[in-house]
Amino acid sequence: MKRLTGFTASCCRSFLTSPLRRDLSLTSQSIVLKEFVDSGLPEPDHFKIQAELFDEEKAKSDLQDGGFIVEVKALSVDPFQRATIRSDGKHKSAVKVGEPLNGFVVGNITHSKNSHWKVGDLFGAGLPFVTRQIVTPEILKKTAIWKLTGHVTDENLTYGLGILGMPGSTAYGGLTDILRPKKGETIFISSASGTVGGLVGMMAKQIFECKTIGSCGGPAKGEFIKNVYGFDHAIDYKQAKSVDDLVIMLKEVAPKGIDMYFENVGGIHFEAAFQSLRPGGRIAVCGFISEYNNDIPNLSSFNPMNMIYTHQRIEGFVCIPWLIGKRGTFLADVSKWLKEGKLVVHETKFNGIEKWPQAFQALFTGNYKGKIVVTV
Amino acid sequence: MKRLTGFTASCCRSFLTSPLRRDLSLTSQSIVLKEFVDSGLPEPDHFKIQAELFDEEKAKSDLQDGGFIVEVKALSVDPFQRATIRSDGKHKSAVKVGEPLNGFVVGNITHSKNSHWKVGDLFGAGLPFVTRQIVTPEILKKTAIWKLTGHVTDENLTYGLGILGMPGSTAYGGLTDILRPKKGETIFISSASGTVGGLVGMMAKQIFECKTIGSCGGPAKGEFIKNVYGFDHAIDYKQAKSVDDLVIMLKEVAPKGIDMYFENVGGIHFEAAFQSLRPGGRIAVCGFISEYNNDIPNLSSFNPMNMIYTHQRIEGFVCIPWLIGKRGTFLADVSKWLKEGKLVVHETKFNGIEKWPQAFQALFTGNYKGKIVVTV
Repeated sequence: MKRLTGFTASCCRSFLTSPLRRDLSLTSQSIVLKEFVDSGLPEPDHFKIQAELFDEEKAKSDLQDGGFIVEVKALSVDPFQRATIRSDGKHKSAVKVGEPLNGFVVGNITHSKNSHWKVGDLFGAGLPFVTRQIVTPEILKKTAIWKLTGHVTDENLTYGLGILGMPGSTAYGGLTDILRPKKGETIFISSASGTVGGLVGMMAKQIFECKTIGSCGGPAKGEFIKNVYGFDHAIDYKQAKSVDDLVIMLKEVAPKGIDMYFENVGGIHFEAAFQSLRPGGRIAVCGFISEYNNDIPNLSSFNPMNMIYTHQRIEGFVCIPWLIGKRGTFLADVSKWLKEGKLVVHETKFNGIEKWPQAFQALFTGNYKGKIVVTV
Repeated sequence: MKRLTGFTASCCRSFLTSPLRRDLSLTSQSIVLKEFVDSGLPEPDHFKIQAELFDEEKAKSDLQDGGFIVEVKALSVDPFQRATIRSDGKHKSAVKVGEPLNGFVVGNITHSKNSHWKVGDLFGAGLPFVTRQIVTPEILKKTAIWKLTGHVTDENLTYGLGILGMPGSTAYGGLTDILRPKKGETIFISSASGTVGGLVGMMAKQIFECKTIGSCGGPAKGEFIKNVYGFDHAIDYKQAKSVDDLVIMLKEVAPKGIDMYFENVGGIHFEAAFQSLRPGGRIAVCGFISEYNNDIPNLSSFNPMNMIYTHQRIEGFVCIPWLIGKRGTFLADVSKWLKEGKLVVHETKFNGIEKWPQAFQALFTGNYKGKIVVTV
């Protein structure tokens, strides 16, 4: 943190002394990639915070029909962003050195020439990490954006980064449309103390009346997912040295096997879950966090022949179709479940845009529970 | 064949000289497992043909309400039967030594106490390989049986073992419901000169207007699938020494990758197909014939992480839901496509029940093309 704070301070100083400075409300800040991170843990020094003037009057007059201007109020910290800062540029949201990061943000509309979006509307979106920006019709075609007005207030706007945003729609889409739970079935969820894992566990238990088994690291997180997210069983994967160990641990709590597996981590979890899968079983592949920091990913071994008579299915997905309302009724359903008290929100807030790199690192070191958000 | 013919002859002789002999039409013949085959090629000597009297009058008077008596006219020869003759007894149609084999048959109803089935009705079913037998209501609950009356005549009754039976519904269900082709997509099909593979190729090309690539062994089969089944491209997998080789061969005919893979063989085919799969790609796992003769199956390696952003899917299935009309409209659709000339039937017939072991072996040695059937 020392390095970053130092950098931010010097960056702001040069801006504050610039002759262009007119009004602090017109500052736009960005989080920019300083160098690619191909392997290992991303460090605060890999990023820098940049401040620039935002000429709102000019932006308004230049605004195309169908476009609008937004003010970003909070930034998300998500595992998928790890893949966007590699030099291979393979991820669809990959960034180059010197460019602002891409990720999920929430904010409000400050000016609009779009009939669907009016000034004051609250939104969630996948956008560059720039606090004031113009959203053109071209950008709208390419990005996910969803209206939070009516579902959140200024106070809980950050829900749009969690339960009413990407993680919420990931849990919702993966569970309702990919796994399609039946009452009484058993679901295994890895990274169960994470935002997505916790939401899947709560939805599976509260809405679909399934037996829920969560995997997480260490007894404290195990207690957390049982007490806060209501999981029936917690498995401490740190006690498993091999696929076989994990299979045995699963068998102890699910002697007849599992019907569904919500995959967030990969590695031995994938293989153990596949081996424990019952006839008719489904695996939703949502994340593979154990491999995100590896240059050359480890392959998983399995026997697809076992899927034939069992009618088993493995399916990868990302949340976008549910998030933007193309499939299912995510915002309506999850808002309703929230109001009914069936889902609880657990957030860790970092205050200040300069804290983002530290918050991002916390994802991989695992020192925080629930959804991590960064308010601007 | 010498051994088997010898055995059959001696078996029939003892029966023919028995004092119980009254009428040859009341003979019931069975194909019985003589010894388990855990690895290697099944040999004619692993089976025996048994002849017994069938007391039809007694069978009629004993018949329960809801049951009927059938005469089996032809027997199928299918890869899945390889797994039913192992000592592990794991396959749901597994048999013990001394018991008749299980498999698909066609025939007609000779007597009925079931309102849905009348005398003379033609049927296909999964039943023991016994030429005259009683089908009780209990058996009906457990087995797949479908009405061929109206779709075939006595002359082409064996279609009920192929295009209007298990292989046809496998191709139909796997293609229409598991792979769900879109016009213009590219499909890769292994074991393309086999019955299922050939049907998938024809349906994909003629009905769904897809580009079809078939894999089979040797240039003669390659010409066959192009000329008879209308495949756009044939890949000779015998020229591929590794997964990489097969990936390169696929790239030559599908530079942008494949959208669908219909898996019949496993091994390097699975891995090469997965590596060649485009975003949105689907793999239907139908068979794994390369592993059927192995005691300990080889595992497949893949990276499930690649399925996430691509929304890819791997799904195993067996034909039963489509065959018995629980999903889709198989018999109606395929009969229609047959009448329209969109599908052609290619059959190899072995005449005489005693030829079944030889016909079964031919499946694995690959010396015949099209659907192999054995008439009684």
